[in-house]
Amino acid sequence: MSKIAVLGYGVVGSGTVELFYKNKDKIIKKSGRDLDIGYILDIRDFPDSPYADKFTKNINDILEDDDVKIVAEVMGGVGDAYEYTKKCLEKGKSVVTSNKELVAKKGAELLKLAKAHDCNFLFEASTGGAIPIIRPLHQCLAGNDITGIEGILNGTTNFILTKMINEQMSFEDALSMAQKLGYAEKDPTADVEGHDACRKICILSSLAFGKHVYPDWVHCEGITKLTLEDACYAESWGGAIKLIGSVKRTEDGKILPMVRPAFVCYGNQLSHISDVFNGVMVYGDAVEEVMFYGRGAGKLPTASAIVGDIVDAAKMNGTSVSQVWEDSPDSSFIADYKDDVVSVYVRVRGVTGEKISSAFGTVEYLSREGQPDDELAFISPAMKERDFDAKLDSLGGQVLGKIRLLDM
Amino acid sequence: MSKIAVLGYGVVGSGTVELFYKNKDKIIKKSGRDLDIGYILDIRDFPDSPYADKFTKNINDILEDDDVKIVAEVMGGVGDAYEYTKKCLEKGKSVVTSNKELVAKKGAELLKLAKAHDCNFLFEASTGGAIPIIRPLHQCLAGNDITGIEGILNGTTNFILTKMINEQMSFEDALSMAQKLGYAEKDPTADVEGHDACRKICILSSLAFGKHVYPDWVHCEGITKLTLEDACYAESWGGAIKLIGSVKRTEDGKILPMVRPAFVCYGNQLSHISDVFNGVMVYGDAVEEVMFYGRGAGKLPTASAIVGDIVDAAKMNGTSVSQVWEDSPDSSFIADYKDDVVSVYVRVRGVTGEKISSAFGTVEYLSREGQPDDELAFISPAMKERDFDAKLDSLGGQVLGKIRLLDM
Repeated sequence: MSKIAVLGYGVVGSGTVELFYKNKDKIIKKSGRDLDIGYILDIRDFPDSPYADKFTKNINDILEDDDVKIVAEVMGGVGDAYEYTKKCLEKGKSVVTSNKELVAKKGAELLKLAKAHDCNFLFEASTGGAIPIIRPLHQCLAGNDITGIEGILNGTTNFILTKMINEQMSFEDALSMAQKLGYAEKDPTADVEGHDACRKICILSSLAFGKHVYPDWVHCEGITKLTLEDACYAESWGGAIKLIGSVKRTEDGKILPMVRPAFVCYGNQLSHISDVFNGVMVYGDAVEEVMFYGRGAGKLPTASAIVGDIVDAAKMNGTSVSQVWEDSPDSSFIADYKDDVVSVYVRVRGVTGEKISSAFGTVEYLSREGQPDDELAFISPAMKERDFDAKLDSLGGQVLGKIRLLDM
Repeated sequence: MSKIAVLGYGVVGSGTVELFYKNKDKIIKKSGRDLDIGYILDIRDFPDSPYADKFTKNINDILEDDDVKIVAEVMGGVGDAYEYTKKCLEKGKSVVTSNKELVAKKGAELLKLAKAHDCNFLFEASTGGAIPIIRPLHQCLAGNDITGIEGILNGTTNFILTKMINEQMSFEDALSMAQKLGYAEKDPTADVEGHDACRKICILSSLAFGKHVYPDWVHCEGITKLTLEDACYAESWGGAIKLIGSVKRTEDGKILPMVRPAFVCYGNQLSHISDVFNGVMVYGDAVEEVMFYGRGAGKLPTASAIVGDIVDAAKMNGTSVSQVWEDSPDSSFIADYKDDVVSVYVRVRGVTGEKISSAFGTVEYLSREGQPDDELAFISPAMKERDFDAKLDSLGGQVLGKIRLLDM
């Protein structure tokens, strides 16, 4: 019998244990191997847990037990999680993880280590929660030349944006509701500033294009500057504002990963994804476009991805899958977003239509209910962002909103 | 080097060869094995093809070459395709196929044969074209107890329905346009009567619930009776009519697979899937719901799924994945759709509101532009279909339309 060790008994860890025992028969049948959870590592005590006899506070219990073939790292962070993952892989134990920070910051190193020790480092749960995206992107679309990915990768911000759009709530009220419902942390920075989505697009970019993309290299804007007025203009334009993490290959052979709010037209499936749901659209030369949709977070949805990886690791026993990317010594393969050609929604106060025409030429004006006389909103023609910025500066007046259109 | 043989050089076969050579370097890297196409089997001659030296009319060339490890069966039908697939599997050659008829009618037998000969029978391309659904359903969602699946599984009918909804075309005009654009065959029966969707829901049902579901056991209704008026009422109700293939576990532990047009509310992602695109929603106890979306047919999209399976078969070299289901001696595990509880949209002529109330109790009336005085349309309360039918019979008058609501 192969033992599984679960590192961390928080939300995802306890969900993983719960789901494993709930569907144990099916899981064993699918993995073709007798499996059981041997250890649960946590610094806390759980004397009343039905799994009390499995708890340990000592990672060495796990490292030194040769029957432990698979380790689920669900602690989070890059401190102990990183150290323990390294040690497990060095012992030839496959590690599956939901830890997006770990994968985004240390993925290349850990994948290399897994390969060297004939085991696997799997991370389906790190991106898109319940949504199968890592394995489909790598395996099912293996025949494609991937040209781009764009996704709603953070459930908290999508919930906030949905409330702003559908119920005309302000950003502050929607955030406060998300916090009350447990969708947002007390300190919501990682979500609302786009850092969470940034880690996920780093993972997807690395996997699709074969080179590690580090979070520091990605231009990232959050949703804190969005207003209800912007949401109304988006609707009148024929779409919705979404926080989009994306990457695409540019004409000079570089790639451009980015996180920012964007106007997404109703013709794009992503515009219809509401509440805490996530969706990832993948573009390839053969498939054209495919989308994956589901719950991007939560106890059992994330546990579903962890258990799926456990089954895969069990099936692969002792062989390393070729899911790897190279480390990148520098960011020279990352394009400058200022060189990207974009159309931009702009909301200004105290600027005349003449000024706008002379700066941008012909633009598409938008309107909203209750629009003040001194407010104008328009969609700029497509141009390099660098040029757009210069033209916008030349307008004078007050820029109240500026949101790129999603272009793929 | 391992050789690949392609059986059939039609649309999908030529797409597979084209895609393989276009992305050969990437494909070989991902499969971790040197691969090349060794044979293309077709009864026709292609003297001017750049692959002319690979063509053969004799299956024995392929069967007797031990270097052929992987065979892509893209001929279609269950005659030669079935015989050749059996022979290849018996020789220990993995077979990947886009042939939904073959999988729906012979899947259990061929999966068993593959297992017995330590090779693989893979069929990602048989359902949903480019959309990764077979492997995600089986692998990524392995930790889930799957409770149901519902999908838009046929692009031709979805194109026709989209034209009826968005452009107010009649069924006949939309079908004729689909034929002109090459989306529908001259004889469109398999598509518009739901037989194609039926084969696909058989495959998904078999995979999700572990027992072979044969097409003859599935209640199947097509879209030929739908009218523009029905589409208008659906819109006023807040949704769209879609041809849905679905399966769910029923309370008595049976499963209910079915194909029929349905009212799908705008809250369901499937309602937003337009034109020739397909989408499959999967419900599980851990994931709640996940959806897969993309092109359900076409040369390169289908080739993408074939090549993905080729890569997987190459990686699995000599081991059989546990993607199996059992054969079913009879249909006793299939529930009777007449026992399913449904709400139904009804359009009648010459029936009074009083009659409707006395038969159905309180109903939700719908309206449309240009609605004649003697026409009523309503949504029935939820009840067993058997009971619904009896009540509908008691109405008298003329039933002009009757479409179930999608209930999941």
